[in-house]
Amino acid sequence: MAEKQKSFGERYRVKPGKPFDLSKEDPRAANGFADKEAAKAGTAADAEAIDALQDRLYAEGKRSLLVVLQGIDCSGKDGTVRAVFNHCGPLGVKVQPFKAPTVDELAQDYLWRVHKVCPAKGFIGIFNRSHYEDVLVVKVKKYASEEVIARRYGEINAFEKLLSDNGTKILKFMLNISKEEQAERLRERIELPEKRWKFNPADLEDRALWTDYMKAYQEALTRCSTEDAPWYVIPADRNWVRNAAISRIVRETLEEMNPKYPVPKDWDPAKIKVV
Amino acid sequence: MAEKQKSFGERYRVKPGKPFDLSKEDPRAANGFADKEAAKAGTAADAEAIDALQDRLYAEGKRSLLVVLQGIDCSGKDGTVRAVFNHCGPLGVKVQPFKAPTVDELAQDYLWRVHKVCPAKGFIGIFNRSHYEDVLVVKVKKYASEEVIARRYGEINAFEKLLSDNGTKILKFMLNISKEEQAERLRERIELPEKRWKFNPADLEDRALWTDYMKAYQEALTRCSTEDAPWYVIPADRNWVRNAAISRIVRETLEEMNPKYPVPKDWDPAKIKVV
Repeated sequence: MAEKQKSFGERYRVKPGKPFDLSKEDPRAANGFADKEAAKAGTAADAEAIDALQDRLYAEGKRSLLVVLQGIDCSGKDGTVRAVFNHCGPLGVKVQPFKAPTVDELAQDYLWRVHKVCPAKGFIGIFNRSHYEDVLVVKVKKYASEEVIARRYGEINAFEKLLSDNGTKILKFMLNISKEEQAERLRERIELPEKRWKFNPADLEDRALWTDYMKAYQEALTRCSTEDAPWYVIPADRNWVRNAAISRIVRETLEEMNPKYPVPKDWDPAKIKVV
Repeated sequence: MAEKQKSFGERYRVKPGKPFDLSKEDPRAANGFADKEAAKAGTAADAEAIDALQDRLYAEGKRSLLVVLQGIDCSGKDGTVRAVFNHCGPLGVKVQPFKAPTVDELAQDYLWRVHKVCPAKGFIGIFNRSHYEDVLVVKVKKYASEEVIARRYGEINAFEKLLSDNGTKILKFMLNISKEEQAERLRERIELPEKRWKFNPADLEDRALWTDYMKAYQEALTRCSTEDAPWYVIPADRNWVRNAAISRIVRETLEEMNPKYPVPKDWDPAKIKVV
């Protein structure tokens, strides 16, 4: 079972140490999820299993899971959280969005603000965007020199190895949508009054830089998919495929971690009386 | 509709400025929820409505909701979060547990660590325990002098007024379970292997101080139920009554707040073209 599920995740994984061609990944691929209703049911079952596994992770209190969600505007980061992690609810899952760094954050190195909010033992932490923005938007908009950015891939790998060596399992998902799908979703945000607050005219400036962003993603995916912290490229044009793939990979990862309820060490259940 | 729901919450509210007798509150009361299945269905419907209201709260970005959950061990704080807030999921809801203060926290005043983690605009923050521990366990265990504790009620009221004046709506729920019900729940934690990690033999020391704790609760409820930040005493021996009552009060409060999707100010939906 675990072997079979492992081979499932493999198909999305960016092979460490090999050149990766993002343009060959089809954002509309169904990747084995032929039936929409079956895929949705699978996601719901996975979400329930993830909840039970998170309870064990918390009870064990020794390790954590960090889920990085990266993707261009409208790629479905929030929708992924809802589909995969709402069953856990807010008790054991913390979502950490990363926006433009504040003045205080800019006064430190770029990983300082990230380190501060990494998930504590027992928790699942979700990064909505992440330190990868420092090699994505920063590269595209030239907020740092090419020399500085070139150095960052190695720094990020070392940082993630530190987390991994100390009990944090890391999964990084690139939500891969097509430029056409983004156009449709942006139009929806503009048309529907209850979605307009999500739209910012500056999003169109980023859209105009699409090719540059994809180049920056390809570089990050190639250089920062490691054994400790693999990148997965998820076809995200169809929400149900995206959710089904991510929920399966999260579930299989937690199953492999196999957290265990601790056995009481300093008290004997047979000898405790509640009066 | 709003009027009718307001009168619903009234029955649980500790009237500001009046002496309050906790011993007259029945932890097993059904309080109008005669039918268990109907109550559960009501909670599920409320949870869905709360999710939609939270989306508007986040979109509006001007106010927040702080939900304080207080109660003795096993009173059902985590279960409340799951029943009422899992539908929102971790995107817009943050749970903040309060444990024994750290050395760094003890080097500050007791509200310092609380202020730091109050919900940001747009969010629902849930305190699992809270600053009230500073007039509950601290009073019972005599960690501070009676003079210091006597001063704290007013300080807490002033602190909560500050939050309230600046856009944070505050709801405080005391989960009221009976001593018999706690015994049953403690026994369950001891008997079921997957629940044993939740049990700490020190919990029995607190149980032995039941009367002192109830006295401390009564004092806090009497002195800190204000118009700005009311206390609600929730019969909590039956989970479904507890969940139904709290979900209704949270829902009615958000409906009264009535957050609104903002209208775009600096761009015209009719003039934006996505190409």
